[in-house]
Amino acid sequence: MAELRGVGIGLGVAQGPVARMSEPLPTPGDGPSTLSIGEETARVREAVGAVARELEQRGAQAGGAAQDVLEAQAMMAEDPTLEQEVDDRIAQGKSAEFAVFDAFASFRDQLVALGGYLGERAADLDDVAQRVIARLRGVAAPGVPDPGHPFVLVAKDLAPADTALLDLDKVLALVTTEGGPTSHTAILAREKSIVAVVGAAAAKDLADGETVIVDAAAGVVTTEPTAAELERAQNRADARAAQASAPITPGALADGTAIPLLANLGKPEGAEEAVALGAEGVGLFRTEFLFLSSTHAPTVEQQRESYTKLLSAFPGQKVVVRVLDAGADKPLAFLNDAHEENPALGLRGIRALRASEDILREQLTALAEADAATRHTEAGPADLWVMAPMIATVEETDYFTALAREYGIKTAGVMVEVPSSALLADRILRVADFASIGTNDLTQYTLAADRLLGSVAGFQDPWHPAVLQLIRDVGQAGRENGKPVGICGEAAADPLLAVVLVGLGATSLSMAPTALADVRASLLEHTLAEARGIAEAAIAADDAASARTAAREAASR
Amino acid sequence: MAELRGVGIGLGVAQGPVARMSEPLPTPGDGPSTLSIGEETARVREAVGAVARELEQRGAQAGGAAQDVLEAQAMMAEDPTLEQEVDDRIAQGKSAEFAVFDAFASFRDQLVALGGYLGERAADLDDVAQRVIARLRGVAAPGVPDPGHPFVLVAKDLAPADTALLDLDKVLALVTTEGGPTSHTAILAREKSIVAVVGAAAAKDLADGETVIVDAAAGVVTTEPTAAELERAQNRADARAAQASAPITPGALADGTAIPLLANLGKPEGAEEAVALGAEGVGLFRTEFLFLSSTHAPTVEQQRESYTKLLSAFPGQKVVVRVLDAGADKPLAFLNDAHEENPALGLRGIRALRASEDILREQLTALAEADAATRHTEAGPADLWVMAPMIATVEETDYFTALAREYGIKTAGVMVEVPSSALLADRILRVADFASIGTNDLTQYTLAADRLLGSVAGFQDPWHPAVLQLIRDVGQAGRENGKPVGICGEAAADPLLAVVLVGLGATSLSMAPTALADVRASLLEHTLAEARGIAEAAIAADDAASARTAAREAASR
Repeated sequence: MAELRGVGIGLGVAQGPVARMSEPLPTPGDGPSTLSIGEETARVREAVGAVARELEQRGAQAGGAAQDVLEAQAMMAEDPTLEQEVDDRIAQGKSAEFAVFDAFASFRDQLVALGGYLGERAADLDDVAQRVIARLRGVAAPGVPDPGHPFVLVAKDLAPADTALLDLDKVLALVTTEGGPTSHTAILAREKSIVAVVGAAAAKDLADGETVIVDAAAGVVTTEPTAAELERAQNRADARAAQASAPITPGALADGTAIPLLANLGKPEGAEEAVALGAEGVGLFRTEFLFLSSTHAPTVEQQRESYTKLLSAFPGQKVVVRVLDAGADKPLAFLNDAHEENPALGLRGIRALRASEDILREQLTALAEADAATRHTEAGPADLWVMAPMIATVEETDYFTALAREYGIKTAGVMVEVPSSALLADRILRVADFASIGTNDLTQYTLAADRLLGSVAGFQDPWHPAVLQLIRDVGQAGRENGKPVGICGEAAADPLLAVVLVGLGATSLSMAPTALADVRASLLEHTLAEARGIAEAAIAADDAASARTAAREAASR
Repeated sequence: MAELRGVGIGLGVAQGPVARMSEPLPTPGDGPSTLSIGEETARVREAVGAVARELEQRGAQAGGAAQDVLEAQAMMAEDPTLEQEVDDRIAQGKSAEFAVFDAFASFRDQLVALGGYLGERAADLDDVAQRVIARLRGVAAPGVPDPGHPFVLVAKDLAPADTALLDLDKVLALVTTEGGPTSHTAILAREKSIVAVVGAAAAKDLADGETVIVDAAAGVVTTEPTAAELERAQNRADARAAQASAPITPGALADGTAIPLLANLGKPEGAEEAVALGAEGVGLFRTEFLFLSSTHAPTVEQQRESYTKLLSAFPGQKVVVRVLDAGADKPLAFLNDAHEENPALGLRGIRALRASEDILREQLTALAEADAATRHTEAGPADLWVMAPMIATVEETDYFTALAREYGIKTAGVMVEVPSSALLADRILRVADFASIGTNDLTQYTLAADRLLGSVAGFQDPWHPAVLQLIRDVGQAGRENGKPVGICGEAAADPLLAVVLVGLGATSLSMAPTALADVRASLLEHTLAEARGIAEAAIAADDAASARTAAREAASR
């Protein structure tokens, strides 16, 4: 057997025979066209229009996030700048096929050069180009294979058009050789709960029909597995299936210590699913959705309406709302339009809000009004907590908590995502009512590695003992000050890491609702004393991988 | 009295009457010119040429860094793009004065929008425009006042042309209302050891003739000072003057504990001055100068020659060479030309070197050869240490130290400037022979605030207790592992902070040679036990300002 490493999406495991995505169409030649410019232009218009309509149709059929993605692709196909580029090449006497190939390729290179999120859109553009060229040639567009039995799909990087209409009964798992944790393959795999390992470069050598184990939790694809390995994988898959249908109980350790399991939500609309999956409240409600769609801040009324909807969905439960976290990867022109060399280290989070305090005051007004409006409903009020992002100092903590109290908000806390606020947690938690650790940014700053940059992706691992040490500092400060310490970063969704986090002092965990079942089951396997032992083992390691291994060994003792 | 706050440059203090820089020329009107287009164009050419020649002449007279700056300004004046912009406006019937004003202003705005280093060049461009317009009008260019007695010069932001030719016998101190610690005022004040406070916005209201105290160490300008305050300032200034002429002794605390005082150097040419000022070796030799001037890496031979020159200057003394620290604010196209959203969190330092290992290997080859070449010289060999920048993990430490040893280099260590390496210092110092803390970057990452970005400049203070805590962790790890821990960031040059750093466990301090005298005197005032007590007081504070105050109080007990 051999192990191919990539980035696992989710925690599942699956096994089965490989089916490879068909290879891209051959590159069109750049020789002169035999048709007139008018004829070639007409062919391109027809093909582009047909592809765009087909993408829209698939989107309507798929619904959800897939629909947004496919409609974005349809718009790409008909982008006027691209159309001009194609026309220019046809005017130079090139064939429609070559014109499309070349124009899209040059646009693609520009996207790749931009890197990050836009760079990962390059695959979408490639897919559009392939579809248009296939249509021009009158052949089938490259797509998902259909070997007639369930299969592990192996591809370079799946295009949204493919993943959107995947037949889930047939696809056992996804493996890509390119693309990272923010590629569409990853995003859609998460949404559809498909077992996936992305960016496993060595998977390019997998052959059609060979059996592999895809272990998303470990980020590993095992080739030529032994019978024992296959059985172990099947047992894990069965156990996971059993967990998913286990009764929903409040989050707790084996010794009965309560660890409330909360949901991360980005819109009030997600509340229903979260409740259905057993969320005991909301640990992180992001408010950016209210601000991203316009060039102006939303009104107090618009905000109040959203917050009221949210609070009404969680009667008698905790709802932690994070005030606007703008800047860095979420720039808002009306808050901070200065060019910054390093926006992640710039005027973001609470820093940007202080510079535009009216926006913060309006948000707190709307939150206090929503709280008042739901206080006397039949089901009883939610317990509203507010917190500020990017707190770095005690002074910022003073500022935010005082302002929140000015609006009558009872519970005001801080996000711990900057190393300094973890290091000074003992002083910060004298002032704040609670802390919530954002492990993604905390890892980014502690390791000084941009979490959206592929070339330093290896540093972005919340298992890193330096990050665990900071979390322990915050946990200890929480205990000493009698203040709760939550985790709302992605780390909380990793079942084993969740145990470690509790061992380090976390008193609640918040995550994407789909992760709740796995974490609930994992916590039930260990007592608090055991969790502390497992955390000790992890924190003593030299690096993230050893920390994971040490925790796994300590947990299985 | 009142206190105006700004950013102090250096540690001096001075007092005297204010003389304000003359106000800029009135803005030219945009009415139609009464001359022909040809006449206006000829006037502009003459004026621009004359100003450029004058700037070059002043540069040649001033020499040093000022010359580079003035020559850059002369080039700005004759920039062809700007010339075209001016001509366009004249062609539209504007006067030469307005055309120059408007074209330069629009170019200036572009620089400001770029921010950072380029943004701070805006003042240079303004100065060129003023000089050209003054010449067109036949009036004297705005410049340094001459009240006939020594004075404290107050200005918006000094242009290089002004600072370069300042009569030091007349100027007691500099105060600017704009510009930051990287403005030319600051750079040139440092080079010429002029007492300066920059970016003190409230200084705009200072009147000609009023007496002020300019305290660079505190970053404060005191207006309407009392007699007692004036006397205290004078005593401090006298004490400083006495220190500067005190005998040069090896760095040590009052109880005789040796704390070697080393120099930060950017070129071998700085060695002589460093030795004259009493440097006991080199704590940080930056090697970027070898790489910045070309698009290719220097050859092994070129490097060896430089390193040999450096090592020869310090027989029998320690010389710590940092391997190339590229990336972030020091991009090198041949190392990493990918666009990065946050270069400070990107592929920089050791990360970039690993991606281009041949460059690192060549540098280590050259260092080992230079070491061998100076081993048997008459004066005796220097003690060569090498270290790698941006180490974040134990694994990177393993990598770098193994590679250095492969080349026969005996002492290999790490820069601690990423929070994770401070947090894991106990594990890193099991492997590395020493650690050197870069306080500037360590502060930047710990507070998640770009150290070159004005809007978050308030976070960039190495006195922050979170930063001190990390330094203490490294100091403790050094003691436990029996490994030296140096400081080579700007913090070491602050005489009081130097005492705190030693109290936290630093075993040597490295700084700009001009700072050695002040630090030497400060260390001699305290025993190691006292230094530890002062450090304790600082680290217990809530923020940087309180830490400074607490240390000051503890130190004066």
